[in-house]
Amino acid sequence: MKILITGGAGFVGQRIALECLKRGSLEVGDGSIDEIVLTDVSEPAFWHPGLIGDSRISTRFGDIGDAQFVHSLFDVSYGVVFHLASVVSAHGEQDFDLALRVNLDGARNLFEGIRHQENPSNQQARVVFASSIASFGGDCMPDVVDDVSKQTPLTTYGTTKVIGELLINDYSRKGFFDGRSARLPTVIVRPGKPNLAASSFVSGLFREPLNGEDCVIPVEPTLSMPVLGYRNIANSIIKLAEVDAALLGNDRAVGLPALNLTVQEMMDALKRVAGNRHLGEHILKRDEAISTICEGWAQHADCRRALSIGLPIDTSVDDIVSQYIEDYLDNE
Amino acid sequence: MKILITGGAGFVGQRIALECLKRGSLEVGDGSIDEIVLTDVSEPAFWHPGLIGDSRISTRFGDIGDAQFVHSLFDVSYGVVFHLASVVSAHGEQDFDLALRVNLDGARNLFEGIRHQENPSNQQARVVFASSIASFGGDCMPDVVDDVSKQTPLTTYGTTKVIGELLINDYSRKGFFDGRSARLPTVIVRPGKPNLAASSFVSGLFREPLNGEDCVIPVEPTLSMPVLGYRNIANSIIKLAEVDAALLGNDRAVGLPALNLTVQEMMDALKRVAGNRHLGEHILKRDEAISTICEGWAQHADCRRALSIGLPIDTSVDDIVSQYIEDYLDNE
Repeated sequence: MKILITGGAGFVGQRIALECLKRGSLEVGDGSIDEIVLTDVSEPAFWHPGLIGDSRISTRFGDIGDAQFVHSLFDVSYGVVFHLASVVSAHGEQDFDLALRVNLDGARNLFEGIRHQENPSNQQARVVFASSIASFGGDCMPDVVDDVSKQTPLTTYGTTKVIGELLINDYSRKGFFDGRSARLPTVIVRPGKPNLAASSFVSGLFREPLNGEDCVIPVEPTLSMPVLGYRNIANSIIKLAEVDAALLGNDRAVGLPALNLTVQEMMDALKRVAGNRHLGEHILKRDEAISTICEGWAQHADCRRALSIGLPIDTSVDDIVSQYIEDYLDNE
Repeated sequence: MKILITGGAGFVGQRIALECLKRGSLEVGDGSIDEIVLTDVSEPAFWHPGLIGDSRISTRFGDIGDAQFVHSLFDVSYGVVFHLASVVSAHGEQDFDLALRVNLDGARNLFEGIRHQENPSNQQARVVFASSIASFGGDCMPDVVDDVSKQTPLTTYGTTKVIGELLINDYSRKGFFDGRSARLPTVIVRPGKPNLAASSFVSGLFREPLNGEDCVIPVEPTLSMPVLGYRNIANSIIKLAEVDAALLGNDRAVGLPALNLTVQEMMDALKRVAGNRHLGEHILKRDEAISTICEGWAQHADCRRALSIGLPIDTSVDDIVSQYIEDYLDNE
């Protein structure tokens, strides 16, 4: 079986690829993984060492908004597609047209490619689309969001994510493929550099101090956010590809498991877990643009549906920080 | 002020145009109506006599899925746009690609045209997108739908309608135009011939017997449907263009006022109102495809939000039938 991961050079894409390589097979179709194609717009600053030199990994670079490029990816057929490629939240606010091109046209190009791919095994491709909890927002958002809450996003990013969920449902209903949407909470702890997501600081508040650098906190410490560690983000997305479609009903969009934590609780966890490491400081400095976006998001998520179908959750934020230290600091 | 109506050759489009001509001005911008451009894919079978020969009416025929044609409509600027053009429900189930081309690409072509039109008055165009109560459906649909119910449609038509609502919200949030979505219930009584909407029989059950013809009822008579008469459909859509955006909040999609009626109640009303006219028969003959679509729709709508912002509702189904007889039978 071949797997395609769009946004495959990104952090979450690489973590899914790593986990797939480690497992060697998925509980989908014949299961055994021959090849993982990572596609992205360009080479990343960082490839995880676990991906380099593995003969099952191949890369293809191009613009998912370009229908011809996407068509060229389907010279082979995929049993599973993880669609992660996306312009992120704050970037989408800066460039509406790019957000629609990449997130909406890109999704349609990809979904059409999967729909029309050669399918000798006669088994529908499993497709997992990475949506986001940022798809909630606005006047009608309840205090705690779940899988039946209406999504009225206040960002173009969120808008395109809801549209992706709708298209996943309709392509699945039509039998064009077997799709699912994973509504991601904020992923922690991302290594490397900050990105253009408004939530970028949430990884920064762990990463920068552990690197001995100060970190600006652009929101109130009392702000609550649903978050999940990257290991269980990858595990949940893979599990969502594996579960029986009958468990999902006709709304294929599942809010991934999440811990609802305040920024203060996350800062406190860092200090608990860091032990005697030297830490940079947290500098509280409210940024209106970032605060406005983050305060407009859902602050609490009810993830009982995800847990009921077997998606994994972290025990505590302390565990997530320990995993990051193990994977990205002690291993260096 | 110029008004553009897409789907302008359709029944609802013509009714809106008639009502605008009658009023002479709208409570938007400078208000006075110089010109109403009706655009549609082709000449209709029937133009309402009230539109023929009025110098304020002009027509432009072309495919809204064709970006160049849509661009050509914006050689003038519009103060108000009513976007009604759409592949309808059962047609969309037959032709997925056409539904996406007309309903999704068409909406995007139009919204981009409005966003980039010349705007010497510096007043944002008011845009009303005709969505549909068929945008509700699926496992999570409540017994009574309202403006905060999640929309998980079970048709491609419904899917494209939710996407249109999302785009209206985001274009409005970005300040590209001042948009609103009108979620239409089933419109009764449409004159002329049946169309490809799964709900086409709901007009037929009045129209065909009044023409002395028998009418097949393809669903159970106990099926409830939210419906509204065409006069108040036009009045509600116009009113939604006129209301202050502040009344709408950031979710610009409003379920229009509707009466929740069973098919039996509608058949009974016809007999009450018809007096001593000769009526064709209602023939109960369940059609699985039509029933499946209609039973998947919302059977009851709570329209308190629409009423609170001043959108009009019919007093009774008897009134609606009387209006149809007055407008389309006694006037012939």
